[in-house]
Amino acid sequence: MTTDATKPPIGPKTRLCMSLAARPGTFGTRFHNRLYEQLGLDYVYKAFTTTDLPAAIGGVRALQIRGCAISMPFKEAVIPLLDAMAPSAGAIDSVNTIVNDDGRLTGYNTDYTAIYTLLERAGIGPDTRFILRGAGGMAKAVAAALFNRGQTNGVVVARNEAKGRALAALYGFGWEAAPDDLTAPLLINATPLGMAGADEDSLAFPEAAIKAAHTVFDVVALPVETPLLRAAEKAGKQRISGAEVAVLQALEQFVLYTGVRPSTELAAQAAAFARGA
Amino acid sequence: MTTDATKPPIGPKTRLCMSLAARPGTFGTRFHNRLYEQLGLDYVYKAFTTTDLPAAIGGVRALQIRGCAISMPFKEAVIPLLDAMAPSAGAIDSVNTIVNDDGRLTGYNTDYTAIYTLLERAGIGPDTRFILRGAGGMAKAVAAALFNRGQTNGVVVARNEAKGRALAALYGFGWEAAPDDLTAPLLINATPLGMAGADEDSLAFPEAAIKAAHTVFDVVALPVETPLLRAAEKAGKQRISGAEVAVLQALEQFVLYTGVRPSTELAAQAAAFARGA
Repeated sequence: MTTDATKPPIGPKTRLCMSLAARPGTFGTRFHNRLYEQLGLDYVYKAFTTTDLPAAIGGVRALQIRGCAISMPFKEAVIPLLDAMAPSAGAIDSVNTIVNDDGRLTGYNTDYTAIYTLLERAGIGPDTRFILRGAGGMAKAVAAALFNRGQTNGVVVARNEAKGRALAALYGFGWEAAPDDLTAPLLINATPLGMAGADEDSLAFPEAAIKAAHTVFDVVALPVETPLLRAAEKAGKQRISGAEVAVLQALEQFVLYTGVRPSTELAAQAAAFARGA
Repeated sequence: MTTDATKPPIGPKTRLCMSLAARPGTFGTRFHNRLYEQLGLDYVYKAFTTTDLPAAIGGVRALQIRGCAISMPFKEAVIPLLDAMAPSAGAIDSVNTIVNDDGRLTGYNTDYTAIYTLLERAGIGPDTRFILRGAGGMAKAVAAALFNRGQTNGVVVARNEAKGRALAALYGFGWEAAPDDLTAPLLINATPLGMAGADEDSLAFPEAAIKAAHTVFDVVALPVETPLLRAAEKAGKQRISGAEVAVLQALEQFVLYTGVRPSTELAAQAAAFARGA
């Protein structure tokens, strides 16, 4: 693996990879195109939006577009348009990645894969008690990853009772709407609390709970340093960040599309480049 | 118009233009991408093939792909999938270019436009008698251009009687299968005679007819110098080449897609670059 490979100019054999989102961002485009350049791969990446998801996915199939990242609000609606679901997506009924093998479309969820991997890397024991805030798409990915690691000793905290109870019941977790005590060795925020443009000054867990924890995981990816992660660092806690999830899931997409796994260093450089947009 | 503009990197606002062909070539990709770079336009061009034309065109619409060149064998099959036909395509029931305006797809035929323009530039008078060899797709474009310039004094020469008679009747030309006398001031070859990989050593008109002509037009684009064009040059005749048609039609596509008309010099440079593949 070198960084001085020469990417060929776009030609008839160049493979297109793409993304579909209501509001396309820049991270994926810059991340993938940067790695194609550095690894000399004959691919090009472009972000799209659509108001006709079935026709867009039909186009992915008919134009032999190699891969397609799926963002909000298409992650569940896309499922009936695919030919197969990988376990990562089947586990949470949510697809963020499509791989096109000669017209056969398989749905993956690399958010799930990334979260699972990051929990592994952090050395979280299966018996570790957790509190998971949130019951939306990312909370589902976290809950499935926890469960599949053998972690069932925990509580989903979500004000929406129907969604909270459903998610908890799926994996045998507890549920609470708004407990007084939010202490646990593993604290996970899967709500928009602390997200840029949303509740960016909100702290997803109280200071006391952070001080009592061993590991703090915030799935919010922007800003890179959320209030929760800043508080965790100040308290000297192990941290897992949404920015790490974002990079690792993009890297897993890259591997699925190209069959090439960049070095950790190269991937980190591409992520830094992509964030610099 | 400058040549030192900086093309922005691919991002969410980058427009994709593309081609659909059974066997994608390199000319269009290199020509368009070169001009995007030189003019600093936020576009990218890529060639595709498909086995599902309706889904591919549905994808063009749903993914807001700005423009799509259409090659063999899709030029007629694509018509019912479009929303509107420009006069250039309607005249010959053949589309080689689609422009996507916010989901509304209009078919054009820039081969027709290019041929018309080249006949104009060559100063061919409307009364000039012609012989047109061929009755296929390019012959139809030539015939329509001749007719719309007021040129009706001529003969279609085609061994296929049904196609030859039909084309001739459409515009009030004569038809002959294989006349002894092939002399006329304007000789036009719209058959594959002289084409690389087909009948590349065949001369589409006899030497005597070439010597008696004023202008020789060969629509064969590859090789750039066909046997017919070489013979015409040797005989000191005015020439119109298929390579000129190829460049001019690509340039007209470029203008339709981007709204920008490159200088003649820049277009010629891009064409030379594109042919150098």
